[in-house]
Amino acid sequence: MPLRLTTELLTLHTRHPFIIARGGQSEYRTLMVKITDADGIEGWGEAAATRFYGETRETVEAALATYAPLLGDDPFQLEAIESRLETALQRNAAARVAISTALHDLVGKRLGLPLWKYWGLDRVKAPRSTFTIGIDTPEMIRQKVAEAAEYPILKVKLGSDDDIGILRTMRDATDRELRVDANCGWTAAHAVRMLPVLEEFGVTVLEQPVAPDDLDGLRQVHRRARIPIIADESCVTAADIPRLVGRVDGINIKLAKCGSLREALRMIAIARAHQLTVMVGCMIESSLGITAAAHFTPLVDIVDLDGAALLRDDPFTGAAIAGGQVTLPDAPGLGVVRR
Amino acid sequence: MPLRLTTELLTLHTRHPFIIARGGQSEYRTLMVKITDADGIEGWGEAAATRFYGETRETVEAALATYAPLLGDDPFQLEAIESRLETALQRNAAARVAISTALHDLVGKRLGLPLWKYWGLDRVKAPRSTFTIGIDTPEMIRQKVAEAAEYPILKVKLGSDDDIGILRTMRDATDRELRVDANCGWTAAHAVRMLPVLEEFGVTVLEQPVAPDDLDGLRQVHRRARIPIIADESCVTAADIPRLVGRVDGINIKLAKCGSLREALRMIAIARAHQLTVMVGCMIESSLGITAAAHFTPLVDIVDLDGAALLRDDPFTGAAIAGGQVTLPDAPGLGVVRR
Repeated sequence: MPLRLTTELLTLHTRHPFIIARGGQSEYRTLMVKITDADGIEGWGEAAATRFYGETRETVEAALATYAPLLGDDPFQLEAIESRLETALQRNAAARVAISTALHDLVGKRLGLPLWKYWGLDRVKAPRSTFTIGIDTPEMIRQKVAEAAEYPILKVKLGSDDDIGILRTMRDATDRELRVDANCGWTAAHAVRMLPVLEEFGVTVLEQPVAPDDLDGLRQVHRRARIPIIADESCVTAADIPRLVGRVDGINIKLAKCGSLREALRMIAIARAHQLTVMVGCMIESSLGITAAAHFTPLVDIVDLDGAALLRDDPFTGAAIAGGQVTLPDAPGLGVVRR
Repeated sequence: MPLRLTTELLTLHTRHPFIIARGGQSEYRTLMVKITDADGIEGWGEAAATRFYGETRETVEAALATYAPLLGDDPFQLEAIESRLETALQRNAAARVAISTALHDLVGKRLGLPLWKYWGLDRVKAPRSTFTIGIDTPEMIRQKVAEAAEYPILKVKLGSDDDIGILRTMRDATDRELRVDANCGWTAAHAVRMLPVLEEFGVTVLEQPVAPDDLDGLRQVHRRARIPIIADESCVTAADIPRLVGRVDGINIKLAKCGSLREALRMIAIARAHQLTVMVGCMIESSLGITAAAHFTPLVDIVDLDGAALLRDDPFTGAAIAGGQVTLPDAPGLGVVRR
């Protein structure tokens, strides 16, 4: 009997409107994907579409309709299924990773193994996660920093009209470790000018200062920086990594970009071979999608998996980042349950 | 209860003395490693020491004595165990891969999954294996080619005093596909001179023409070659791959070089990201060691796993290469049994 795919719309709300360099909102719609096998065992995944990568809820639904008949009947055929989907319709990573996640959940449940254990990992190795403060007014930033008291590492979104004001507000409010994500919001020249400012405010990591295709810009910033420069929007899949070598210090892997849990593991191996720092990030998504990424955090250096922690109505529990520490579930598969 | 490691000496004999550019013999001693868990379930692996990589049976035994107390009690902790072993004593890849193999065999047996299935692979994707003809007299080469009638792809060892004579003898004896392995036996200048000769004899792949460290030599040969140049002795672990990019067309992964099944999978991912052809090779070893490598052949392009097929007294059955086709076992773990 072929694996059966069904979906369910999830409507998620952030505690505060979440603003980054290219805009923001407070309501997010993701799709929950359920894959059911012949014995009625269900695997779950989440598709968090982002327009920046060419996906909306509607394209995800359309892509899933293309993918569903290609699943076959054996969830253990992970490599073959994933390559069949990509051959049938490339890009559409959020849609594909929802399937990849659901298949891995199903395999883990059939084996009675949590995903981290299926992958041979040690869950105590998971590093701490940052918590992100979006672009906002000084007053709201102070309030958000206070609300995030339990998180020892904060990440602040820049690329706004008043980046220095935001940094000053953050530093006035806290002496916790501070990382910066410019989300492509700067030119290379501006990023280079910002480097001493970031140092002055004690920023420890700078993510994606320039536009995705501005690889020369990345190199200029990287050459002059004393803190690690991490490629996010410039690094979508494994194929992007070779050209980033020598231009950045590390890469940010997101499932909604790379489209597959197996691809994420491959990206880690490739980054390691090039002595690149490995970060894992997320979209605004529920604990369903977050937990999929959390399972491979024992292999990474920098974790930014606050997508569900930013919500006020997360429909699931799974991996947690309470106190900043990633805690992986012990139940089979993803170990995600409905609240 | 800690995992228990025991060993057993295997004495193997090739049908014919097996000669390559740096010498040869007909008797080979490998070590079988058994790891037993608290329930008495046994995982098996094989250590095929080669002097070229600094290992003998004695160094393997000594390294295993260092590694054995570090296994811990949970075979599922693959990542942590493998990194503990490498931290305790690096190199000694044949010793480490025997442990890596035994742990994977044990995990597969505990889960009731053959290794290829544990890795999410499709066993029908395994390509054909070559069969190797060592350096020999024209008469013996003709006899070996006749004995290898079932194998549609032959690999011939060069780097001898009469390479052209060997090629001529091979071509007079068969019109099957022919690949060449020079085992570091040539200078770059000589290799470049050999390229038109290889083409004339219809050779389709050239492995390791020059010395391991002669990366410039590899590039010179690669630039002038119309057939794929594969790095073997120049590519030991994942860390070697980046510097080979642009210098060869592909890499030959061997477990006895890279020391870990997980490292082999990482090497495949890294090679793919750089559009390198992936080959898997072996030492002279029994079907125990061969089967470990065979399980990931669905992910590779070129298979050269004839190490056990060259023996007249293989103590095990596992993956087979009858008729050149790699056939993976369906039993849990490695699926290797004593004859």
